[in-house]
Amino acid sequence: MQAIDFYFDFSSPYGYLAAQSADGLGERQGVGIRWRPILLGAVFKTTGAAPLVDLPLKGDYARRDMARAARRLGVPFTFPANFPFNSVAAGRAFYWLDEQDPVQARGFAKAIYHAVFGEGREMESPDAVADEAAKLGIDPDALKAALQDSEVKNRLRRAVETAIAKGVFGSPFFLVNGEPFWGHDRMHDVEEWIRTGGW
Amino acid sequence: MQAIDFYFDFSSPYGYLAAQSADGLGERQGVGIRWRPILLGAVFKTTGAAPLVDLPLKGDYARRDMARAARRLGVPFTFPANFPFNSVAAGRAFYWLDEQDPVQARGFAKAIYHAVFGEGREMESPDAVADEAAKLGIDPDALKAALQDSEVKNRLRRAVETAIAKGVFGSPFFLVNGEPFWGHDRMHDVEEWIRTGGW
Repeated sequence: MQAIDFYFDFSSPYGYLAAQSADGLGERQGVGIRWRPILLGAVFKTTGAAPLVDLPLKGDYARRDMARAARRLGVPFTFPANFPFNSVAAGRAFYWLDEQDPVQARGFAKAIYHAVFGEGREMESPDAVADEAAKLGIDPDALKAALQDSEVKNRLRRAVETAIAKGVFGSPFFLVNGEPFWGHDRMHDVEEWIRTGGW
Repeated sequence: MQAIDFYFDFSSPYGYLAAQSADGLGERQGVGIRWRPILLGAVFKTTGAAPLVDLPLKGDYARRDMARAARRLGVPFTFPANFPFNSVAAGRAFYWLDEQDPVQARGFAKAIYHAVFGEGREMESPDAVADEAAKLGIDPDALKAALQDSEVKNRLRRAVETAIAKGVFGSPFFLVNGEPFWGHDRMHDVEEWIRTGGW
């Protein structure tokens, strides 16, 4: 069993919900989870999709469903005023950290998600992202410099291109040895697929 | 606890999957399930949505996910060549039957769904729908006449309008005392909501 790819956008509420249990799933099944932030805006250019919460009827439902799912999971949920937001800064920072220390990168991802959807805070600006990272002992100035580094920019770009090439069109999205699962509500299936080898 | 409304389109594969377990859910929880066929084409005019399987990336995923979910449930699944199809005939026939005998109407709905997604057969034409109904002892000529009856037509039209007014935008869709749940993958939540009174 290879590692599982866990694709998400930092501006995705359902990605936030999936992030609560992704590592636990991996630990129970003895497989690694590779966190892979992407940019849904770029993906939506390919698919022609629009942000869920902007859609008539569906948008209202989605807001209700997100909050309801969070209550069921027992995790805090605050819908951010700034939504959807551009998650380029958080995504670049993730891949910069991931190159040095994947464990720290994962901790950073959880902290960003908690700030956005647990507390409803703005995490679009480099300053907000750097301040949040600083709480984890990450040098905020080095982080802000990295956001402008062409190699770091390319890493996020390539991650998005790779995801689209693999058929990823939403967040969260899991690939288990090539088998695609979309949505936090498919995580039981993801786990069962790993456990049984598929059906 | 009032009856639960179960909205679906006869051309919806996920509606077919939900139909397999809707009545069982109601029986376990001691509540009635009101089957309510609608026309997603009319709903999509309101929401601007497109049929799932026509969307780039998402469409391919959906076909795979439907077949996978059916295997998991242990129900037959054959994707019909004629898809999406106009389910007006099946919808009108349902409401015509429902007025006389709701139990028979439900049996008819299950038979139509099985013909379409269990066996991949065409169920758009009045003849196909009437032939299927005949196997259940329903007079096919009376059914075909009913499809042109203005009162029967109005019943389906009103059902669609009511659904849209209540915020229904997809199939399957459940309303539990006003609480909306979209998707066959929310049926565990539907059941838990009924059992606990919500969270």
